Amino acid sequence: MSSIAPIGAFDSGMGGLTVVKELMQQLPNEQIIYYGDTARVPYGDKSKETILTYARQIMNFLVDQGVKAIIVACNTVSAVALEDLKNEFDIPVIGVVKPGAKAAAESTHTGRIGVIATRATINSGIYRDFLCRTNPEIEVFQQACPLFVPLVEEGWIDNEITDMIIHRYLDDLVKNNIDSLVLGCTHYPLLRDRIQLAVGDGITLVNPAFETSREFKYVLEENGLLNENEAAAPHRFYVSDGAARFADFAARILNGYTLTPESVTIHAFD
Amino acid sequence: MSSIAPIGAFDSGMGGLTVVKELMQQLPNEQIIYYGDTARVPYGDKSKETILTYARQIMNFLVDQGVKAIIVACNTVSAVALEDLKNEFDIPVIGVVKPGAKAAAESTHTGRIGVIATRATINSGIYRDFLCRTNPEIEVFQQACPLFVPLVEEGWIDNEITDMIIHRYLDDLVKNNIDSLVLGCTHYPLLRDRIQLAVGDGITLVNPAFETSREFKYVLEENGLLNENEAAAPHRFYVSDGAARFADFAARILNGYTLTPESVTIHAFD
Repeated sequence: MSSIAPIGAFDSGMGGLTVVKELMQQLPNEQIIYYGDTARVPYGDKSKETILTYARQIMNFLVDQGVKAIIVACNTVSAVALEDLKNEFDIPVIGVVKPGAKAAAESTHTGRIGVIATRATINSGIYRDFLCRTNPEIEVFQQACPLFVPLVEEGWIDNEITDMIIHRYLDDLVKNNIDSLVLGCTHYPLLRDRIQLAVGDGITLVNPAFETSREFKYVLEENGLLNENEAAAPHRFYVSDGAARFADFAARILNGYTLTPESVTIHAFD
Repeated sequence: MSSIAPIGAFDSGMGGLTVVKELMQQLPNEQIIYYGDTARVPYGDKSKETILTYARQIMNFLVDQGVKAIIVACNTVSAVALEDLKNEFDIPVIGVVKPGAKAAAESTHTGRIGVIATRATINSGIYRDFLCRTNPEIEVFQQACPLFVPLVEEGWIDNEITDMIIHRYLDDLVKNNIDSLVLGCTHYPLLRDRIQLAVGDGITLVNPAFETSREFKYVLEENGLLNENEAAAPHRFYVSDGAARFADFAARILNGYTLTPESVTIHAFD
């Protein structure tokens, strides 16, 4: 595999673009091929079997595009299907959960960490597992927040109702005296400012996207796959539905990067 | 086709059970085969092409189960794909939109009607078309309410936040002096009491499920397919994901009808 081959990234929909943003900053020479499964979003309330089936289809598609490595830019897939996917594919594959847990373990002083995510990610218990493996003294407090994804997709960010929903999900969590809070879903960084306001400045918000992109860089280096010399070829974006809406959403996330509806390709699996 | 064959009903997920409830009451001799596409819910923000692909797969599946007629218990599918589906299948197929529009046209005194539904249904303009065809004097005021489905699926029904979201979507709509409001998504009847409280008693809420079941009965009669003599065989429920959650949800909707996780069968198309 050549180091000038593209890297693949995928998510259940548009949230993974918060990871793409970090990749663009930290790995400016890499060409990114992104797939968002917007026809079947959200994954967060689905079963492991269904999530694995969908992720496998997408990874095969990315491999067909010639990618040299894949970043699973979706917490739900990383939580419930990553080990299976790593076993099935022979290129480097990394998820967002382990780097996110590592960053949280490094940021806490009190050892009391909160995790918010989709129902599937929370039920998997994977953040708790990784955190406790890093340090058995750590106590983890979890909360599923199923309405955050539809709120973000509806564009209700700076909004009194959104603040109330944030309080409703997080007020009890905060009472556990956590000092770090993992944003365990790629949509949640878009609510970052409102969440910070709700939980107060004493709690550090951990965005796994940053740490994951850093770790992805190490993985590429280790495997001799980092593209150090060439300028990146143009990124490519695929979705299973709704190219125009995806381009709109991307414009809000990828500050300064222009994405037109025409540059987003529809590719469905049905 | 024999009149003792079952009838088919389907929805993007669990909302169509509000239609099943009406069918059970109005057509007690009929065996129902229900399909809920819970692995790919929601449809409301998806494109026509994707919705048509999914609906076609489900209808083929129901036909394979030997159904004599199909009720499209989903406003989004009825709005964007019904004509195509009717042309492709040679058994009677009816949707929820036309009967719903008819009921609204009959209920209004002022000729000012509100319609709330998913984004796909609203964008199709189909309620407005049917209403204006019934009576060109009717004025239609529409509002997409994308957060209602996730709120219902999260179980936040009697809840201050839900009331605020209802007000946010409906306050401007009500200012148009409507006297009837169509609940143009099969999930919405579950918010009926809270919506009535928000809009006031002067507005009649129209639930297309009732009218659609009545029309479905006529269609069966016309085609000599009404099962008048035999007791119904046991109903069958299929979903593409999450049998236990579906059974839970069904228990809340189908008062008195017992549905266990074991009696719900997973059937996915991927």
